[in-house]
Amino acid sequence: MASTATGVPRVTINCDMGEGFAKWKLGPDAELMPLIDLANVACGFHAGDPLTILSSTRLALASNVAIGAHPGLDDIRGFGRRKFDVSEEEVYAGALYQIGAVKAVVEAEGGVLAHVKPHGALYFILRDSPALLRAFLKAQLALSPPPPSQPIPFVGLAGTAHESVCKELGIPFIPELFVDIDYDAEGRLLSVGESRKPTEAGIREKVERVLREKETLDINNKPLKLPFLEGGFTICLHSDMPTALDNVRATRKAVNEFSKQ
Amino acid sequence: MASTATGVPRVTINCDMGEGFAKWKLGPDAELMPLIDLANVACGFHAGDPLTILSSTRLALASNVAIGAHPGLDDIRGFGRRKFDVSEEEVYAGALYQIGAVKAVVEAEGGVLAHVKPHGALYFILRDSPALLRAFLKAQLALSPPPPSQPIPFVGLAGTAHESVCKELGIPFIPELFVDIDYDAEGRLLSVGESRKPTEAGIREKVERVLREKETLDINNKPLKLPFLEGGFTICLHSDMPTALDNVRATRKAVNEFSKQ
Amino acid sequence: MASTATGVPRVTINCDMGEGFAKWKLGPDAELMPLIDLANVACGFHAGDPLTILSSTRLALASNVAIGAHPGLDDIRGFGRRKFDVSEEEVYAGALYQIGAVKAVVEAEGGVLAHVKPHGALYFILRDSPALLRAFLKAQLALSPPPPSQPIPFVGLAGTAHESVCKELGIPFIPELFVDIDYDAEGRLLSVGESRKPTEAGIREKVERVLREKETLDINNKPLKLPFLEGGFTICLHSDMPTALDNVRATRKAVNEFSKQ
Amino acid sequence: MASTATGVPRVTINCDMGEGFAKWKLGPDAELMPLIDLANVACGFHAGDPLTILSSTRLALASNVAIGAHPGLDDIRGFGRRKFDVSEEEVYAGALYQIGAVKAVVEAEGGVLAHVKPHGALYFILRDSPALLRAFLKAQLALSPPPPSQPIPFVGLAGTAHESVCKELGIPFIPELFVDIDYDAEGRLLSVGESRKPTEAGIREKVERVLREKETLDINNKPLKLPFLEGGFTICLHSDMPTALDNVRATRKAVNEFSKQ
Repeated sequence: MASTATGVPRVTINCDMGEGFAKWKLGPDAELMPLIDLANVACGFHAGDPLTILSSTRLALASNVAIGAHPGLDDIRGFGRRKFDVSEEEVYAGALYQIGAVKAVVEAEGGVLAHVKPHGALYFILRDSPALLRAFLKAQLALSPPPPSQPIPFVGLAGTAHESVCKELGIPFIPELFVDIDYDAEGRLLSVGESRKPTEAGIREKVERVLREKETLDINNKPLKLPFLEGGFTICLHSDMPTALDNVRATRKAVNEFSKQ
Repeated sequence: MASTATGVPRVTINCDMGEGFAKWKLGPDAELMPLIDLANVACGFHAGDPLTILSSTRLALASNVAIGAHPGLDDIRGFGRRKFDVSEEEVYAGALYQIGAVKAVVEAEGGVLAHVKPHGALYFILRDSPALLRAFLKAQLALSPPPPSQPIPFVGLAGTAHESVCKELGIPFIPELFVDIDYDAEGRLLSVGESRKPTEAGIREKVERVLREKETLDINNKPLKLPFLEGGFTICLHSDMPTALDNVRATRKAVNEFSKQ
Repeated sequence: MASTATGVPRVTINCDMGEGFAKWKLGPDAELMPLIDLANVACGFHAGDPLTILSSTRLALASNVAIGAHPGLDDIRGFGRRKFDVSEEEVYAGALYQIGAVKAVVEAEGGVLAHVKPHGALYFILRDSPALLRAFLKAQLALSPPPPSQPIPFVGLAGTAHESVCKELGIPFIPELFVDIDYDAEGRLLSVGESRKPTEAGIREKVERVLREKETLDINNKPLKLPFLEGGFTICLHSDMPTALDNVRATRKAVNEFSKQ
Repeated sequence: MASTATGVPRVTINCDMGEGFAKWKLGPDAELMPLIDLANVACGFHAGDPLTILSSTRLALASNVAIGAHPGLDDIRGFGRRKFDVSEEEVYAGALYQIGAVKAVVEAEGGVLAHVKPHGALYFILRDSPALLRAFLKAQLALSPPPPSQPIPFVGLAGTAHESVCKELGIPFIPELFVDIDYDAEGRLLSVGESRKPTEAGIREKVERVLREKETLDINNKPLKLPFLEGGFTICLHSDMPTALDNVRATRKAVNEFSKQ
């Protein structure tokens, strides 16, 4: 996922997909899908339901987009963004359940589960607790193809437990870069509320700099080195932002333009 | 499942297991498990949740009980017993999701998914609609091991679409016999409310007759031939009846006594 | 509600409001609210949640729009549109719960609960079962102010049990007219799928005819007499249609133009 | 509630009731009800549903037990025991919704809403945040009868914001004493896990001491003065403990015996 056959680090775009629920939709999935490389499909716990997972899977397959599971806390009413205590058993069982469910749909439709990326509060809980992350990754490993195949890769934050525990367990790790929200001067990711409103020009400038200079711009528009930019990585764009489609279009265009040289 | 290596039709006992939800429990699972052969594990749509599925799986594995998926309509508030219209796509996607989720847990714990039995309203909807049942079984097939292995068997009502569509699709079919609720004189299954209250003696008498005479007793206590009793079958007992434990004990004792000769 | 102080029958516009859920939105509520007279606020069973009810209430109060409760079946996943069996006790308890909850919010914010209109499958179940409707209206009466005040009015279909049972129980009845879906030649309401796509011109023509000639146009564009058009009534517009805002604007304009003379 | 007409402080017993959900039951409500004075009825957010609220209300009315609302966080899957961030608006809207819903059922059945006691995580969140408690009590006040009637009383922990904010807002406060879980030497309440297993003899001894000496016993069986024991208070017993029925019986007996003199 993170590098091409020729060894050139690969830069992909990922978006959360299928985050509607029952009657309700979220984000312009059909328009976004052809523009991205990795679709993180909601698994029914923070968003999503079987029909949505099925249609997201078909949409991704039709657009030749890699499909990943996007499991979350079991909290529809909080959209998986409310942080609360969970046990290792809960994390393990919930990961098996959600990843297993989405994997079943993807494989029945002729696809392959290409990656896993946890959602919202779970993403940050796993970043902050190596023990819970190990419980999660134990489930991910159990659902991976047996050796000599590679385990299913994990998408997360470089320089955190996400990366170190994946390394410890032999799970391929794909670092994420964000260009529609900001980093502070120390490289810490800021929330949507703390970040500047993204613009197409701003995204374009960041992507160009990322691909040419291996650095991004922080919230004060100062150059910011992020070590993982030296290798392959995936750019995450929020599909639920009002400007999601413009953001993804700008990113796609810039990635295509600046990663070809 | 339905026959032993020696060709003698096999008679098993199945119960729904793991039908609690979140804080709530249902049925004396721990006491029942050692007495049964097939555990139908609720998949989270009419009952169950990841932790319950995990603990039911471990309990079954510890008791050497075969584990099946017990998917239902997506209706926790109605315990999957409220009948409403569903589309083929919904049935297909819901079956993939639920069976896939439980299969993931079972396999991660070192087990094998041994059968599938739909729950409540879904069981009857699939009995009455071959088109919906085909959609369901398409999912079940997709989750089955590839040939030359056998597909995962389906547990259902003999002489209905359950049996004929399984045959059409090459899916092993395990017919169910009920001894804690009644049949009418024509062999139609009656509901709990329409049936007599089961007694240990009554269950014992039915099981003895079933195993020796290949017939059961109907609601009027008249002998009733059910063609499938000539072969292997599974006896279903309701784990949510107040007398569940007594019913299963009586059945286990009678099966052990009368199927050995 | 149905007539002005001068005795001239009054024609109002009603829309379902607050039909989002948790993270998800549905319909352009903020744009619609100033254009309508009656807001039917979802009560949390088919859509809605406390925060949405609160914000819908505030929006309605700020726009001087009458606020009604819009209770549904307890079925978020089916958006209250899946028909299943319910008992009289369930209908009674569910109506008390939902109407009571919304009334509490409305009154705490300084408003008055002005009407009740059931949603989706419940609307049709109550139309078809006088016994269930009586159970529902028993709850509505219990939540109404004591005599000599009038009970809270019920919004429903003229010529059905909706109207006759309200009359039997002394509950004011407000008949509904639909102009964004069609009637057949016998005056039976058709579903969205069976109806023609509404146009602004078509809505305008219907409203003009309704107000001037006391008749509408059926699916074949033939004049259709609906007896209730002689008195006061309310025009229902679907807030979840893609063209909802245009439909409501066209209706508002036509009502203002043609009901003034 | 907290004192009799003769001015003698009154000691009551309260239990959470109606904490089943859909198909699932919790606690021996029917056996407990005749033994208690205050029933805290779950409102559907952490447990409960309209039918359960209705039957709990009828059971309480038949046993002449005062009925209170027992609102919780909107978290069925966590039984309202998972702590997460909530806003003042959410607390306010959620309290209006839940208390309003239960009040509607109680009043329709001829009863009066006698008190409010928050559940689980919400109980502790409100103890720890005066701002959130004010938002909650604003809802409670809005649902109280107008002056000169007293507002609906609040049941909570003496010596915490529960008591001081109620006083600030003029809301009657009923302090709770626990005898089936323990206090530490400083009078801080311990959790079920941290407490000793209750025994009938232990409960009897505590109640006798409470009523005669105005003190209880801490976890080390040392006498512990709790200032509120000088006045009226309510003894809370957990209806979901395996020994709930024995605990409540022992308390009832001891209260009857020792409070009469």
